[in-house]
Amino acid sequence: MDNKSNQLKLKRLGIDTQEEYILLIHADCFICKSEGFEALTQIVVNHNNNSLIAMVNIVHSNILQSCEASLSESAWKKLGVNEGDFISLSHVTTVTSLSYVRSKIHGNQLKPIEFDAILNDIVTGKYSNVQLASFITACANSNLNTNEIISLTQSMIKTGEKLHWDYPIVVDKHCVGGLPGNRTTPIIVAIVAEAGLIIPKTSSRAITSPSGTADTIETMTKVNLTAQQIKQVVAKEGGCMAWGGALGLSPADDIIIKVERLLDLDPEGQMIASVLSKKGAVGANHVVIDIPVGPTAKIRTEKAFLQLKNYFTIVGNAIGIKVYIIKTDGNQPVGIGIGPALEAKDILAVLKNEKSAPSDLRNRAISIAALILEFGKKIPHDEAVKIATNILTKGLALKKFLDICEAQGGFREPNTASLTHDVVATKSGIVTEIDNRNLAKIAKLAGAPNDATAGMEFFAPIDTHIEQGQTLYRIHAESKGALEYSLAYALSMPNIILLK
Amino acid sequence: MDNKSNQLKLKRLGIDTQEEYILLIHADCFICKSEGFEALTQIVVNHNNNSLIAMVNIVHSNILQSCEASLSESAWKKLGVNEGDFISLSHVTTVTSLSYVRSKIHGNQLKPIEFDAILNDIVTGKYSNVQLASFITACANSNLNTNEIISLTQSMIKTGEKLHWDYPIVVDKHCVGGLPGNRTTPIIVAIVAEAGLIIPKTSSRAITSPSGTADTIETMTKVNLTAQQIKQVVAKEGGCMAWGGALGLSPADDIIIKVERLLDLDPEGQMIASVLSKKGAVGANHVVIDIPVGPTAKIRTEKAFLQLKNYFTIVGNAIGIKVYIIKTDGNQPVGIGIGPALEAKDILAVLKNEKSAPSDLRNRAISIAALILEFGKKIPHDEAVKIATNILTKGLALKKFLDICEAQGGFREPNTASLTHDVVATKSGIVTEIDNRNLAKIAKLAGAPNDATAGMEFFAPIDTHIEQGQTLYRIHAESKGALEYSLAYALSMPNIILLK
Repeated sequence: MDNKSNQLKLKRLGIDTQEEYILLIHADCFICKSEGFEALTQIVVNHNNNSLIAMVNIVHSNILQSCEASLSESAWKKLGVNEGDFISLSHVTTVTSLSYVRSKIHGNQLKPIEFDAILNDIVTGKYSNVQLASFITACANSNLNTNEIISLTQSMIKTGEKLHWDYPIVVDKHCVGGLPGNRTTPIIVAIVAEAGLIIPKTSSRAITSPSGTADTIETMTKVNLTAQQIKQVVAKEGGCMAWGGALGLSPADDIIIKVERLLDLDPEGQMIASVLSKKGAVGANHVVIDIPVGPTAKIRTEKAFLQLKNYFTIVGNAIGIKVYIIKTDGNQPVGIGIGPALEAKDILAVLKNEKSAPSDLRNRAISIAALILEFGKKIPHDEAVKIATNILTKGLALKKFLDICEAQGGFREPNTASLTHDVVATKSGIVTEIDNRNLAKIAKLAGAPNDATAGMEFFAPIDTHIEQGQTLYRIHAESKGALEYSLAYALSMPNIILLK
Repeated sequence: MDNKSNQLKLKRLGIDTQEEYILLIHADCFICKSEGFEALTQIVVNHNNNSLIAMVNIVHSNILQSCEASLSESAWKKLGVNEGDFISLSHVTTVTSLSYVRSKIHGNQLKPIEFDAILNDIVTGKYSNVQLASFITACANSNLNTNEIISLTQSMIKTGEKLHWDYPIVVDKHCVGGLPGNRTTPIIVAIVAEAGLIIPKTSSRAITSPSGTADTIETMTKVNLTAQQIKQVVAKEGGCMAWGGALGLSPADDIIIKVERLLDLDPEGQMIASVLSKKGAVGANHVVIDIPVGPTAKIRTEKAFLQLKNYFTIVGNAIGIKVYIIKTDGNQPVGIGIGPALEAKDILAVLKNEKSAPSDLRNRAISIAALILEFGKKIPHDEAVKIATNILTKGLALKKFLDICEAQGGFREPNTASLTHDVVATKSGIVTEIDNRNLAKIAKLAGAPNDATAGMEFFAPIDTHIEQGQTLYRIHAESKGALEYSLAYALSMPNIILLK
């Protein structure tokens, strides 16, 4: 078939399918007919010297003519096409790395070169979500041994950008598995940078939670920095608080995580590779990992904690990162605010040493900052705690925080939501248990993180004595609809905060 | 949020995504914004008292207004909606059976009730393709034990329709894993029915091959029969040759198979459940399974054959089906024709006892028919072979075949393609090996099975002495474009037929 007869004119339908590349062609399209292409098959889309593999959707309406085709938004951008451009289609030749996925399914150990091929094909869009799901499943349930987790981590780093630093010690921190409101990062960055260490902190936005660290910081300063800007801020202030998403660090991880969420799976091996590949890509060589443990946290038992600690340490060592693990309380939210702006208010209260500042957030931040100082500056534990506490108490952390914000484009006060509603206790009692997951959902339904001021203030930590009629939490929202929607869910879940 | 503000007006965009349900909403849709719905999440779509779970795609163009939504074609039909109807959206509450999939991923044995729940949720559209891929992967690599394969088979039967018969013995046959041109079914049905047994044969259309048995039979008679029509044809003639697809027999299997194809996986446990659930649903109690074994066939070793034979027998017994296994040569195509009409011509040549009729197709058909007679009529092997051969040789099979066609709506001669091209040997030699997969692909690129007359005639079986310039195979096509496309592929693959 000559090239001309295999040409389709592009029309932009603007359909967002996230990372999955979709090609839309009309049912009467001659190529479609002659080659027997049908929905749920993969096909190669060619444009000039570029190509990508897409899944086919067949259109039966007049949104496309038979000589036209469209691409999902991610494919449109990846191929760099414009309205009216011509594409040609061809059959998929074998994606070799899929045979390594099948090999893993059949219980074989994968070699570093095989992980490289898989991750490279994932990043270049050769895997459909269905194939990603199969890869994730094949690597779950301890199916990866330590060597494979190391290989996977190294391959993930290789597929993306990497920050390079001339400093001998570059520190970082990470928290595994979210507790609502656990927003220690800005406080820690301020303390650690003030103490003279280099901490080029990048954070993510929320995926399933009411706020990611980057969402929270964004209510106070700009977080969308380039690698060059990060370098400048760090050179000036010793630390930064940037959004990692646009930097292309370990991009395979971002793709894999979205499919894991659909499967409600977060397999250990992939989680370790996910965390450490980001740290490796950002150029850190000393990292504290905060692992909250509790009955409704991601890590629920001492045994699971110790196993994870062991893996993190071994894999970290193998890729040149010294890992220090800290176990924290995973029973309940941290601080008062849940949602971007409300969490920011807690952070500012701690930095300003206000009397009302949540002590749990303050104590966690000091503990982790002290641990970083202890190994980063090679000083005794007690001294590290003293230094961290002093920096915070004397207002030096606040000053450093504001200086970093200034270097990132200026500080602004977080806003306040226009509407609130208090959810009160229907009986008196002692708080014995908190359903963190559903508490977070109420904050999300109120609009967080898209509405930065939405979320909740939480007033009922475990062991608090609550009187009937006392406020358990206060929902914040920007619109009446969102407030009512969140409240309806809250009222349908009376046992989110268990009183006994 | 009240119901009215959560209503979107349906517009049909006619997008076919196969079984996967997709909801399309505009990026400016208020529900989308307030609830934070985004692409690659699942959502419940409600209409009157019906609902289904769909994956969200976000539209950024004017093919939808912000108050409108659309559904993929399968979801549109499933929900029974019309243009302009209103739907409402809600969050997905937990799909319990997905926790059983996770349990399987973690290596646990699943109970019958758990398979029931999974298969039921698959058939009612609660699983996205991503979740199906995870289930398939979790069940691969011998991860299912015999009890689990039995449970899976039983659950698959339960989720669909079932044919019931008053005859004590109802026979059937199946071939595992295709050899191009291996179209024994119509010949076997004719012989067996003529010999007095009941054989309500249903077949599938091609999924990845140039022709399915139903595609081939359709070039000679109507195959799209209702359950009622099947009953009538079988009552009159003892046998039928129908397409199984529209009967709703083991519908989960049809959904799973399409995702397996994307993964290029055909795990043993699922394959056994797939075959036997169809046989159980059709009401057969004695089944012959033809397993071609050869270096490029699906089953490649004696060990794999024996293991599969063992599983088929045990699982068959457990669900009330006596299974008889026959091992056949899996090295090369059967007969001459590959493609619907060309295969039909081979079948008619055998039934008419023409001199040019392919003896390999004839011999296979007699062997399998004889095996069915042997156990179905409880007669010695030699006598069964004699009866089968006699029925064929005396033209009784042809008459029965034509009578069945008549009962199904009338017989017609298969058509012939308008264009052909001979691919000839570039050197002389003996045929030592045939790449069945790529041979099938050439037939597909020529237009099979969509163009029923397209495909190829194959003239170079193993051990044939071929002279330079002699025709190896003849491509048949309906259009110049298809012929050229197929030929281009054929010429790029000179070693499909290996001469030494």
